[in-house]
Amino acid sequence: MLSLVHITDRIRNGALTAEAAIALSTDAMRAREPGIGAFTHLARTPKPGSGPLAGVAVAVKDIIDTADMPTEMGVPAIYGGWQPKADAAIVAALRRAGATVIGKSTSTAFASSDPTTTRNPHGPAHTPGGSSAGSAAAVGAGMVPLALGTQTAGSVIRPASFCGAAAIKPSFRLLPTVGVKCLAWTLDTVGLFAAGTADLALALSVLSGRPMGPSGLRTPRLGLVRQRFAGAAEPDGEAALERAASLLSRAGAIVTEVEAPSSMADGWTVHPSIQDYEAFVANSWEYDTVRDRIPPNILANLEAGRAVGTAAYDEARRIANRARRDAGLLFDGIDALITYAAPGEAPRGLESTGDPRFNRIWTMLGAPCVSVPGLVGTSGLPIGIQVVAPFSRDALALEVGRFVEEALVQGV
Amino acid sequence: MLSLVHITDRIRNGALTAEAAIALSTDAMRAREPGIGAFTHLARTPKPGSGPLAGVAVAVKDIIDTADMPTEMGVPAIYGGWQPKADAAIVAALRRAGATVIGKSTSTAFASSDPTTTRNPHGPAHTPGGSSAGSAAAVGAGMVPLALGTQTAGSVIRPASFCGAAAIKPSFRLLPTVGVKCLAWTLDTVGLFAAGTADLALALSVLSGRPMGPSGLRTPRLGLVRQRFAGAAEPDGEAALERAASLLSRAGAIVTEVEAPSSMADGWTVHPSIQDYEAFVANSWEYDTVRDRIPPNILANLEAGRAVGTAAYDEARRIANRARRDAGLLFDGIDALITYAAPGEAPRGLESTGDPRFNRIWTMLGAPCVSVPGLVGTSGLPIGIQVVAPFSRDALALEVGRFVEEALVQGV
Repeated sequence: MLSLVHITDRIRNGALTAEAAIALSTDAMRAREPGIGAFTHLARTPKPGSGPLAGVAVAVKDIIDTADMPTEMGVPAIYGGWQPKADAAIVAALRRAGATVIGKSTSTAFASSDPTTTRNPHGPAHTPGGSSAGSAAAVGAGMVPLALGTQTAGSVIRPASFCGAAAIKPSFRLLPTVGVKCLAWTLDTVGLFAAGTADLALALSVLSGRPMGPSGLRTPRLGLVRQRFAGAAEPDGEAALERAASLLSRAGAIVTEVEAPSSMADGWTVHPSIQDYEAFVANSWEYDTVRDRIPPNILANLEAGRAVGTAAYDEARRIANRARRDAGLLFDGIDALITYAAPGEAPRGLESTGDPRFNRIWTMLGAPCVSVPGLVGTSGLPIGIQVVAPFSRDALALEVGRFVEEALVQGV
Repeated sequence: MLSLVHITDRIRNGALTAEAAIALSTDAMRAREPGIGAFTHLARTPKPGSGPLAGVAVAVKDIIDTADMPTEMGVPAIYGGWQPKADAAIVAALRRAGATVIGKSTSTAFASSDPTTTRNPHGPAHTPGGSSAGSAAAVGAGMVPLALGTQTAGSVIRPASFCGAAAIKPSFRLLPTVGVKCLAWTLDTVGLFAAGTADLALALSVLSGRPMGPSGLRTPRLGLVRQRFAGAAEPDGEAALERAASLLSRAGAIVTEVEAPSSMADGWTVHPSIQDYEAFVANSWEYDTVRDRIPPNILANLEAGRAVGTAAYDEARRIANRARRDAGLLFDGIDALITYAAPGEAPRGLESTGDPRFNRIWTMLGAPCVSVPGLVGTSGLPIGIQVVAPFSRDALALEVGRFVEEALVQGV
């Protein structure tokens, strides 16, 4: 993979020009893109800007508005060739930092689960996951050092796990969603994909305007949470989490198994009602006027959301608020949680983008989540470990992520 | 004014066709629009739909996307002729209910304070207020029975007060903001203007899918709050509030003066920092690429927001959260608050849209606010009374608003 920190360090040292850094990406894209199909649109003459991310080529998920490229929302039948007026706020932040939008990356239809044609860079017969399929694949394939995705259930952390990329789904609204096609307004979160946690920390610090450096944590106290309310992981996923726990203990972390409070299980249960209800409202125009062109999975979500009704939605929101209030209990005496990033390796076939069941509750809590690559399953495909920190402790999530990353590397 | 309830009742009774109801608006618009200028764009061949709002002509603030009319965001120099792809979710909800979007109503630039050319229907030398200038004026002039606005500081309640319309700024996110140009994402709230509180209740019930009927409250316990942290009202505004308190007591309400907790004063103080910071992020593309075409007041807001910085913004958000937590204290033992809707009558001249200082804190709290017309100032211009209920108690806010409305009518 292309490391953002490595690239920007070399540019600063004069060992690499920003133009040559962009060419690293365009060269890699020429080599890998034909077999992967991570992009829907490519910049014609990509040029570096100036700023802390000069020379960084970025893939932008195609539900995020760009003023200079079409934004087709994963549904070309409705949004084919659609050219927004303005950049999304997060795209403007990228350009302000000197980064180069190198292309638009594939999204499932309206960021739900109708698959893209993108292939997993570690196994072309496998899904890259979704909904941020192209962004995860582009980073995992070493085509770009940074990519934007969004997560409403598990659309950043899961594809990162499948594609062997590092990723962060930051605290709710740490990064702006203005100009991002809405799936569910109380859940939608802009996230980042990069080669490793240091790369994520640099990009998140620049884009959020907040320090993301380490605090000097030596022996993190980690709660291992299995999320039994979400069902069991696959054998590969379970083995990866146990292997990580063992390597983390060996590296000096204190790992204790913890149980989520029942309010969190309740929150997990109602997450789909909130997502579907809000998706139905957010996609009202599409549902009412061009329904026949809406792909089947998202259409089923919208129909389900229509059936939820306001009373059940309002009750689900109260349940979600209770889960958020109780989240502090889960972090009592520990620095961060480790859990499955996905049930296991990327499923075979492109029909399914995999299951977000181990991601949902953390999105609902608004807690920062990091997927740390470094382990593989029995088919040789990547499996990530998910780190979760309390709301607004994004720097801590990344610091613990870094610790996990180093522990996994030492174990290989 | 045109009463939505009266119109829909007459349509249901067969006394009026939906087409004739729409013609009531187009006729009134022909008569009043030339002297007021509430609209930026008119529907060519307005036709009624079917549903509970069939025959209801609606003015839609021009920062709210419409698939069949341009949406110029109050800044034609940047968004002139801009045609969005989709309807905003709230516009789709209107059409789903059978309402007719009769035209786009003027907005100040990006919903901030650069004035429109719209005139107050009760005095053409006076401002209609802002930012929802055209919507307030269109309802106040009797051109439409319903209009959409948005409030981030005081952009619904203040112009309603100035134009003699009833209005509700509902609880935060009761109505969806998807497809509405963002000014500040933690504050922006879609609101409604209509002739009276019963009209608002019908429209809000249909558009939100929640019951908005009365609970049968006979003797509301009202807290009169002067918001001393916001400075004094003008003599006309003070006289109106005192007159309302006296009429409400006479009508059987228990009116007690209450003081806002200090955390609320703190929240009020930091509201502009939150609004400006988020506006700077939300308008990043405009600021970075077409800055020379941004009107001066909103540009000053963006510059101020740029200067706020993330640390001060994060602290302001914590202060806002404390104010929200303490809001319960203010409602202890009372049903709702009454306070100024605006400092006084609409200022003379079109240069200023007036001051939102008595609206800010309630927008920050996310509490439902109703402006009830019925009083006038020394220049004969309308002055509204603002009713505030606890978060999510929109039906209560409207029920108390109805009580206030009847008390004011009895006093005239």
